[in-house]
Amino acid sequence: MTGTTPALPGRPCSAAAALGVVGEKWALLAVREILLGNHRFDALVRNTGAPRDRLTARLRALEEAGVVERRPYSERPPRFEYHLTPAGRDLSPVIRALLAWGDKWAVAEPPAVLRHRDHTLDPAVVCRCCGDEVTPEEVDLEVRAPGWGRSGPVS
Amino acid sequence: MTGTTPALPGRPCSAAAALGVVGEKWALLAVREILLGNHRFDALVRNTGAPRDRLTARLRALEEAGVVERRPYSERPPRFEYHLTPAGRDLSPVIRALLAWGDKWAVAEPPAVLRHRDHTLDPAVVCRCCGDEVTPEEVDLEVRAPGWGRSGPVS
Repeated sequence: MTGTTPALPGRPCSAAAALGVVGEKWALLAVREILLGNHRFDALVRNTGAPRDRLTARLRALEEAGVVERRPYSERPPRFEYHLTPAGRDLSPVIRALLAWGDKWAVAEPPAVLRHRDHTLDPAVVCRCCGDEVTPEEVDLEVRAPGWGRSGPVS
Repeated sequence: MTGTTPALPGRPCSAAAALGVVGEKWALLAVREILLGNHRFDALVRNTGAPRDRLTARLRALEEAGVVERRPYSERPPRFEYHLTPAGRDLSPVIRALLAWGDKWAVAEPPAVLRHRDHTLDPAVVCRCCGDEVTPEEVDLEVRAPGWGRSGPVS
């Protein structure tokens, strides 16, 4: 687990818990930029388009949550670069899923393309257990949280 | 493309465009509930934990963006159920990616488990082009947006 896990209302859910850490508007865009190799605050501001004060607050929260870490690159004046922790690097599938959805549903022309080694990435999800490709229709969520079922709280 | 694509600051990016549609805190949790089969407003409020007014505004925005659609189930009083459009159903990989990250980094014990047919889903991403499993280290983003490079705007 990362450092800070805020309590959340509603159904106990790992996706909700994830959004509690990275669900604020600028968080994943900051992570995207760091994945692209941009580590300094001014570059993060410029490339995300976030207001400076919002991004400052967000990076601090991401640091507290164990998603990014600050590393000094200048002592006078004190300056820091932002790097991803293992938890931060693990967000790349989330960003890839958002990219794929956005390419299909939110832009006219993809402004960036994912490359896999020397070719365009053409991703498919397979299940290691059975070896078959996974279609959404064959995936279901089994609710295990005590007191909750698919339709909500159970009394 | 969905109905409404808001203009966004910063780097032209499909993930940013996706977050422009579903990046507000309650949007993906509402989609999660509808994927679980909960279609009525009161269930969405209860199971997401969202404030009623925030959820009302969010569902309206999702409807305008072509992610959810309202279907009447009562005429007097007028009552609606929320259903996912194809764009909305296509968000399931985003929610699965968030679930996987949250399971690993944001909860002590997974409150729900993804099932694939009769077994626990054990997902892996493969590239259809080469047939190999995809590791994040071998994926790179090729920036195609005019005037932008990896490090930011190019003059």
